[in-house]
Amino acid sequence: MPARLRYDLMTKNKPKGEKTTRWPRVRSAIERMESYTPPTDGRDGKLRLDFNENTVGCSPRVVRVLRNKATAQFLSVYPEYLASRGKIAPFFSVQEDQLTFTDGTDEAIQLMVHTYVDPGEEVLMPWPTFPIFRLAAESVGAKISLVRYPQKTLNFPLKKMIRAVGAKTRLILIANPNNPTANAIGLNDVELILQAAPQAAVLIDEAYFEFFGVTALDLLTYYPNLFVSRTFSKVYGMAGLRIGCLFSQKENIAMVRKFQSPYSVNSLAVACALEAVQDQKYIRDYVDEILEAREILCKRLDQLGLFYYPSQANFVLVCFGREAAMICRRLRECNFLVRDRSKDIPGTIRITVGTRRQVKTMLKALGEVMGR
Amino acid sequence: MPARLRYDLMTKNKPKGEKTTRWPRVRSAIERMESYTPPTDGRDGKLRLDFNENTVGCSPRVVRVLRNKATAQFLSVYPEYLASRGKIAPFFSVQEDQLTFTDGTDEAIQLMVHTYVDPGEEVLMPWPTFPIFRLAAESVGAKISLVRYPQKTLNFPLKKMIRAVGAKTRLILIANPNNPTANAIGLNDVELILQAAPQAAVLIDEAYFEFFGVTALDLLTYYPNLFVSRTFSKVYGMAGLRIGCLFSQKENIAMVRKFQSPYSVNSLAVACALEAVQDQKYIRDYVDEILEAREILCKRLDQLGLFYYPSQANFVLVCFGREAAMICRRLRECNFLVRDRSKDIPGTIRITVGTRRQVKTMLKALGEVMGR
Repeated sequence: MPARLRYDLMTKNKPKGEKTTRWPRVRSAIERMESYTPPTDGRDGKLRLDFNENTVGCSPRVVRVLRNKATAQFLSVYPEYLASRGKIAPFFSVQEDQLTFTDGTDEAIQLMVHTYVDPGEEVLMPWPTFPIFRLAAESVGAKISLVRYPQKTLNFPLKKMIRAVGAKTRLILIANPNNPTANAIGLNDVELILQAAPQAAVLIDEAYFEFFGVTALDLLTYYPNLFVSRTFSKVYGMAGLRIGCLFSQKENIAMVRKFQSPYSVNSLAVACALEAVQDQKYIRDYVDEILEAREILCKRLDQLGLFYYPSQANFVLVCFGREAAMICRRLRECNFLVRDRSKDIPGTIRITVGTRRQVKTMLKALGEVMGR
Repeated sequence: MPARLRYDLMTKNKPKGEKTTRWPRVRSAIERMESYTPPTDGRDGKLRLDFNENTVGCSPRVVRVLRNKATAQFLSVYPEYLASRGKIAPFFSVQEDQLTFTDGTDEAIQLMVHTYVDPGEEVLMPWPTFPIFRLAAESVGAKISLVRYPQKTLNFPLKKMIRAVGAKTRLILIANPNNPTANAIGLNDVELILQAAPQAAVLIDEAYFEFFGVTALDLLTYYPNLFVSRTFSKVYGMAGLRIGCLFSQKENIAMVRKFQSPYSVNSLAVACALEAVQDQKYIRDYVDEILEAREILCKRLDQLGLFYYPSQANFVLVCFGREAAMICRRLRECNFLVRDRSKDIPGTIRITVGTRRQVKTMLKALGEVMGR
């Protein structure tokens, strides 16, 4: 114990005169969780086809706004959201009170589990999907029901999902398009799920919406159990800034805001998001480029005799079989980062689609790695 | 229902053909909470003496780093923390694995309640204190024990705190210096609490450390139940960027990181924080300025016959009695923002100490408002 301690007599527990190693008791839900450390360190200087980011970067207009806002004065002030929500709402065809800014989609998912799920209550999701869905549900001690995609087709298991809904289902989490499978469901299917679970909150995570073009935002006024999340981390090229939006009817948004920290999103990100949605030409051009590049990628995968799943997003899940881990490693040695998904779908690698030029460079390296 | 719905027969719950208003059931802990919307909107163009921010702004070196980092490439990539934690750790005299970056202090508090407190378990804190302590504890459905500061002296209720510790106390939250009372406790008192509650996690929130100069970080190796939080939102002038740090022994940090989102802090904030800690002259100069300005403020308050509590921070809690709300309103009309704290301590206003010049301008307006 440090020498400065003087009031020992007042304490109930006498200092033991030595370092103790009694840790404060951790909630059992947290204790059971595995640590999740996605491999985002040490990516510098490599072609990053592993996190489905925009491989070119955000619109130059965003960079300009950021530089203008980079003043000592602006940085020193706590973020204000009200006016900015009002400005961005029309872009999504919603009202100001039907959205909240989130610290990436991760915070949107946290808001959902913490607002709607008590320990032991049920969270339902297809599997495999975005790993944070499961981690967030685990962190509240939820009972997690996973409905498996059929491994052969990876078609969305709609009937099984609907059958899995029970009276105790409190939250349903669906990524559309889904990650890592890259496929999507239509609004009909979304509606069937919403109708099958009126007692549950249903989150449709549309992180890859722009590559697919169908949004559940169109259903917002019809379903009081619908939530939609969007992010600026993918096509918008702003993953480092950490901003997304969560949408629902205003009564629901008021509820999730009770849980939400009042300043979870930084003010530069808000300013940049407002500018980013204005430059839709930049987004359309990037999407066009990626869809063309995806064609090139898929054709070449066909030539190489590799099976892949149809993609509605800016990534493709490719089957390499037992060589998956080796291929990942060797591509990394050539400075191409891709993501091994073998853990969830044996033998698969998820490859982010970059520009045509980036895809071609990667394919050249892949050919060499495979000895073709 | 939208016309596109076709698969009605498959659903268990037939659509009712009209808008329903059945909301998903919210956790009772959230339902019971009141909404918290701090008045951070519409502050532009006023002298902000209401949120204890740096009233001048961050170091120019931070602005320079921010402009350099403002590239499309840097923004598009998910944040990396490992190397940055290693770089900033020596500044706090800790190891890389003894800290985690947080989305402001708010996230540090969330990590504490979600890692250590199950519904119905006890969280202990003095009252009044930083309101987020209470909100975070409410959000997990904790049993909250408030130990009141004696209203006359506002001296830290040490003995009552220690007596209040029970075998079921899971978390103790203390701001040091405290907000809004502005007073602080020494390390002896911190140790007594740590020793009285070895079964509980104890967070010492040091948001205003730089104005006080005493830190519980010095105790980190001795107490496995000690956590310390710091923020870049106050003296560092980076409230808009949202970054803080949570410190503890590495085993504890590993636990809270299990709950933490892998990318909760944006990468610009991390880059800026690394630069900010390098420019300690800027921080020292600002603290010196504020301490001198606090003298001026207190002297003038004495002259005006106003009672205030001794301050160890960059704000002073002043008693205006029944006129508090009116004074706040009239100062606002003169473009000076201060914070009415009457709700928790009747008749009080919390005034952030700005520079000498800012304090003098505010005092002039205050004199006029009071008719002196």
